[in-house]
Amino acid sequence: MKSYSVKELLSENFLLQEVTVNGWVKTFRSNRFIALNDGSTINNIQCVVDFESFDESLLKQINTGAALKISGTLVESQGRGQSVEIQVKDLKVHGGADPETYPIQPKKHSLEFLREKAHLRIRTNTFAAVMRVRSALSFAIHQYFQQNGFYYFHAPIITGSDAEGAGEMFKVSTLDDKNPPLDEDGNVNYKEDFFGKETNLTVSGQLEAETYAMALGKVYTFGPTFRAENSNTSRHLAEFWMIEPEMAFFDLDANMDLAEDFIKSVIKYVLDNCQDDLQFLEKRLLDEEKTKPQAERSEMALIEKLKFVAENNFMRVSYTEAIDILRNSKPNKKKKFQYPINEWGADLQSEHERFLVEKHFKCPVILFDYPAKIKAFYMRLNEDGKTVRAMDILFPGIGEIVGGSQREERLDVLKEKMAALGIDEEELWWYLDLRKFGSAVHSGFGLGFERLVLFATGMGNIRDVIPFPRTPQNAEF
Amino acid sequence: MKSYSVKELLSENFLLQEVTVNGWVKTFRSNRFIALNDGSTINNIQCVVDFESFDESLLKQINTGAALKISGTLVESQGRGQSVEIQVKDLKVHGGADPETYPIQPKKHSLEFLREKAHLRIRTNTFAAVMRVRSALSFAIHQYFQQNGFYYFHAPIITGSDAEGAGEMFKVSTLDDKNPPLDEDGNVNYKEDFFGKETNLTVSGQLEAETYAMALGKVYTFGPTFRAENSNTSRHLAEFWMIEPEMAFFDLDANMDLAEDFIKSVIKYVLDNCQDDLQFLEKRLLDEEKTKPQAERSEMALIEKLKFVAENNFMRVSYTEAIDILRNSKPNKKKKFQYPINEWGADLQSEHERFLVEKHFKCPVILFDYPAKIKAFYMRLNEDGKTVRAMDILFPGIGEIVGGSQREERLDVLKEKMAALGIDEEELWWYLDLRKFGSAVHSGFGLGFERLVLFATGMGNIRDVIPFPRTPQNAEF
Repeated sequence: MKSYSVKELLSENFLLQEVTVNGWVKTFRSNRFIALNDGSTINNIQCVVDFESFDESLLKQINTGAALKISGTLVESQGRGQSVEIQVKDLKVHGGADPETYPIQPKKHSLEFLREKAHLRIRTNTFAAVMRVRSALSFAIHQYFQQNGFYYFHAPIITGSDAEGAGEMFKVSTLDDKNPPLDEDGNVNYKEDFFGKETNLTVSGQLEAETYAMALGKVYTFGPTFRAENSNTSRHLAEFWMIEPEMAFFDLDANMDLAEDFIKSVIKYVLDNCQDDLQFLEKRLLDEEKTKPQAERSEMALIEKLKFVAENNFMRVSYTEAIDILRNSKPNKKKKFQYPINEWGADLQSEHERFLVEKHFKCPVILFDYPAKIKAFYMRLNEDGKTVRAMDILFPGIGEIVGGSQREERLDVLKEKMAALGIDEEELWWYLDLRKFGSAVHSGFGLGFERLVLFATGMGNIRDVIPFPRTPQNAEF
Repeated sequence: MKSYSVKELLSENFLLQEVTVNGWVKTFRSNRFIALNDGSTINNIQCVVDFESFDESLLKQINTGAALKISGTLVESQGRGQSVEIQVKDLKVHGGADPETYPIQPKKHSLEFLREKAHLRIRTNTFAAVMRVRSALSFAIHQYFQQNGFYYFHAPIITGSDAEGAGEMFKVSTLDDKNPPLDEDGNVNYKEDFFGKETNLTVSGQLEAETYAMALGKVYTFGPTFRAENSNTSRHLAEFWMIEPEMAFFDLDANMDLAEDFIKSVIKYVLDNCQDDLQFLEKRLLDEEKTKPQAERSEMALIEKLKFVAENNFMRVSYTEAIDILRNSKPNKKKKFQYPINEWGADLQSEHERFLVEKHFKCPVILFDYPAKIKAFYMRLNEDGKTVRAMDILFPGIGEIVGGSQREERLDVLKEKMAALGIDEEELWWYLDLRKFGSAVHSGFGLGFERLVLFATGMGNIRDVIPFPRTPQNAEF
């Protein structure tokens, strides 16, 4: 007899047929009603056991978490809460789950407790829903780019280039770390290391992606990136996944158009494909927020918020305009900002971004044309000589979700900026080559994948939207 | 005026329209015919310049590699070799490419030469075709799994677990490598390291994927994995991408069925979606093989070979049968094998795998039920007590492309095997938990992505199918 998934059975296409299903027990009520789940959907299938037909010793093994194989007839359900159920004819226990020791019991567990059990937390409804949405978002991202003429580019993870300066790096080595070989000057001799040089984990695939964009036209990365920063916040991970599209012949306007269309498209995909999980996560968030003071609760429920983002234009505001708004804002005048905004050139802090997005515009905001001094060396200098063609997309509750720019395509200007910042030309000889041979206007951006998952699922801590989070002092599993 | 890609223009939907296109010069003949390419396809668009209407100084900048913006009328081509061409009305040089210094000239470059220029080799037809096929294969993989009820699982890259033993590992650290902190015993004190413990780059996401399969049912990874092995061969990389599906309630037969269907499906996808690139790569391979003795040439051309794999059943052969075939084979009897096959239990070498696949069966082969002694601890022991439910898929010209198994789901058997191999239970407490709570039959496999790309593109060296290869002594870019 063919096995079906719970999702297939709930579709009602198999009514009155003899079916087999495998899954795990969520609950077992009245020695009669098994709620069985196999991960294919958040919904369980009810399996009705006539307890007089089965051994008591077998029934005793039907505890929360036990793995079962069940065969029987799929019929319309007599009870409420489900349309179909299985009248169980045959039941086999693959493996039990002792209620005395199994940690995932049918009661509320705190997210903190579950983080310690990252190998089992996926068995809860919340984490299964989050990770199904995460998977759907991943696919939506690939589909969007592939349908729009982009090629997937695998940026190197181990990098011999450390010039991007996006953050602190992890060293990668096979040297004996207790007694590393030293050179004549007494420094570690990386010539004897695996790659014959010092190597690190990548902080961004952008510079390498540019080499491919300047031949294939439109490319994107989707891979892990790393920051060795001691940030123990709910928005930072040491290992996270990033999407970095890079497009030849795109200026900053085209870049902003793409980023906005891209984000809306992938949000629409989960709205269309993850209804059940989103409804569960919406309810979870409402329950969680009930414990908070009114002022801290979301103005919109989860699905409403996702629809709002998918259907409304992002607000585009230049840095200069944003500074004017902030300077004249109530919190600035009342000295409520920790970092008061006094003059043009100030770097925006999280509190300023949140004010703009959550209080002033009440929608996603794209800030552009930032002061050159607070942005990276590769961003294209404007004609004013003091701003660069950078853009950040800010999201309510999340902050910066995208950072991007038009890239400096002029060899002389790029060299000047590198010299001013003390970046060695020899270190980036290949990056400069792109400006020597067939250079052209080009642009790109980076999107932190986990921040998108946070937004789409309404979860509050980035540790809860990646299977095995890596943070300072934590690399379990 | 809207810009179009070369691929769009060649579709002939814009005939007699005024169009704009950006791209790079492949060749410029007779001061009149520009072959322009933008990476969207391997085909160029011919742009016809009336040289009397343009400045000589402008025309002089039209060299191979220069980036141009061209506007004009799309007309039916008068010449041979293309259906449409652009009558150029306006031409702008984004960036030139000095023929004296630009390395990618329109002549044959060796693959070895191009490896040194990995940032520019993507501008050649060969590498652009390979990387477009690589991108298509990546998408086909995601699409296959998503359409078949799998969830994408992001395995951790930095791992605190080193028990899998699939190979040598790279250390990841932020400690001062010249003067690392030492503990009381004079060993490096990893408690002071970023994660508070010793960490490495993952060699496989399988063990973690099992934790998710035992809740979501069917999951797959697609991420980078690492081996710090000093293998300078045409089939090994220190950093490569791997796909690892893991399925609850799948036995080894179901696992083999899935692997075969999966590989055929993604090969069909590139046959359906990469015709132009495959034709180019087929011709490249034929040209390359002309320089080889007849006996070393492929029996089938590239596309024929891909169709053969997509349309024919893989041969399933037990290890025991394979040993019989090998023992009685001509090369074994004539002592042509470097490692003669004398008895059951021998580990198969590349020469044996090649004999089975290329000489004996002449098709992909799935070997299964290997001796327990030569396989990993987590593979399910058969009732015979000496073989395990392992399987390898062997491909012509590539060797092992897939390795998989049914996993040992019995706690007591797994513990015994770990003890026999000296694997610490405390190290893998979370992996054992999967057998304590809701254990069930489950299976999975790993596919080395670059080996699949090698097969699909007919390239001969794995360094040429990943953008920036990492091998011993090499981590440039």
